Amino acid sequence: MSRNNHRANHRLSKSRGIPEACVGRLSLYVRELARLGARRIGFVSSRRLAEQLGLTDAQVRRDLSYFGQFGTSGRGYEVQRLQERLNGILGVSGRTWHAALAGVGNLGSALLAYRGFQERGFMFRVAVDTDAQKVGRTVRGLVVAPVEQLPDLIRRHHIQIGVLAVPVEAAQAVCEQFVHAGVRAIVNFAPVRLEVPPSVRLRAVDLAIELETLAFYLARSHAH
Amino acid sequence: MSRNNHRANHRLSKSRGIPEACVGRLSLYVRELARLGARRIGFVSSRRLAEQLGLTDAQVRRDLSYFGQFGTSGRGYEVQRLQERLNGILGVSGRTWHAALAGVGNLGSALLAYRGFQERGFMFRVAVDTDAQKVGRTVRGLVVAPVEQLPDLIRRHHIQIGVLAVPVEAAQAVCEQFVHAGVRAIVNFAPVRLEVPPSVRLRAVDLAIELETLAFYLARSHAH
Repeated sequence: MSRNNHRANHRLSKSRGIPEACVGRLSLYVRELARLGARRIGFVSSRRLAEQLGLTDAQVRRDLSYFGQFGTSGRGYEVQRLQERLNGILGVSGRTWHAALAGVGNLGSALLAYRGFQERGFMFRVAVDTDAQKVGRTVRGLVVAPVEQLPDLIRRHHIQIGVLAVPVEAAQAVCEQFVHAGVRAIVNFAPVRLEVPPSVRLRAVDLAIELETLAFYLARSHAH
Repeated sequence: MSRNNHRANHRLSKSRGIPEACVGRLSLYVRELARLGARRIGFVSSRRLAEQLGLTDAQVRRDLSYFGQFGTSGRGYEVQRLQERLNGILGVSGRTWHAALAGVGNLGSALLAYRGFQERGFMFRVAVDTDAQKVGRTVRGLVVAPVEQLPDLIRRHHIQIGVLAVPVEAAQAVCEQFVHAGVRAIVNFAPVRLEVPPSVRLRAVDLAIELETLAFYLARSHAH
């Protein structure tokens, strides 16, 4: 994320006492709870949640305490109720968020097809590209529009989230188009740092982090 | 991640007292330190690092304390030295890790092209697919091989990391091919839970988490 953005995040979350890293963990809790629910497990302890997610017991209790009292003394958390509450807190409970994709290359096409987004209520309503060969083509039910139409399409389709899957060189310019058209939440898949005003929330996806975590353990094992 | 795998992770990390979530944060520290270094900033406080990354001051100090004493009293951490040490700890300092990709669809092709991997020392040496139309084609300098050759290719190219970008339906079977061929670290991009033996470390990439974190803040703002 950009420095500006980090400062903004810190300010916003500080005002409610919830660190941004905690928000990211809510998604992990929800997934683990869904899994427990599917196995008809009714209650779960903070210790069990922590073990499953590679966190500490204290971390889980602190995270959940930001959002109220969920635990039932002696029995732990009620799985279904906690899942519903966390989904509500995350803003993904029974509502749909409209997203626009910029860049319909390999990564962009993969994102349009990614099942996980729809399952969690995120819908791509707009896809744009600069490539004349891609414009006009239908990808996953969306007609690719020229990037010049982005501001108009954002307003017409009430876009709330902008997703950048453009080359590094184009990322800042397209990001600014999202910002100028009023988008306040942007996810950037291009491996480059972007600058946004403090009012805009920016998430940078760094796929190399997943591989680095594995490298840490490989470097310490005799498996290689 | 699969339950088996989580148990394995917990066991492994517990033996060294380092929670897996902490390992993930090391990558974030390294990126922030690289940025500070590029701006010729020599020292940084745990508080400043915490602010930039949306963490708490105490969390940063606790994480870094797992790996020794880095701070210089009064001046904070020495940026360059801490960056080098953390890269070494992560296992990405001056070494290359060999990866094999299964699934050369849109997502797989995007992963082969992703600059961030090479920058951090991860090299795709093998790419396989089941699609006869893809086999034999050259993608980013790699000739796509039939999936049947995966075990042989893994041995021949000393593959340490397996990357799954196959459809949900095929993910478990291809995962098992990696495991049987001796791969001990696997990244799964298919939105499905996989089972691996305790000796194998599995990371599941869930792209929807990035969008959910944004939804949390959007749901609390008046920006939409």
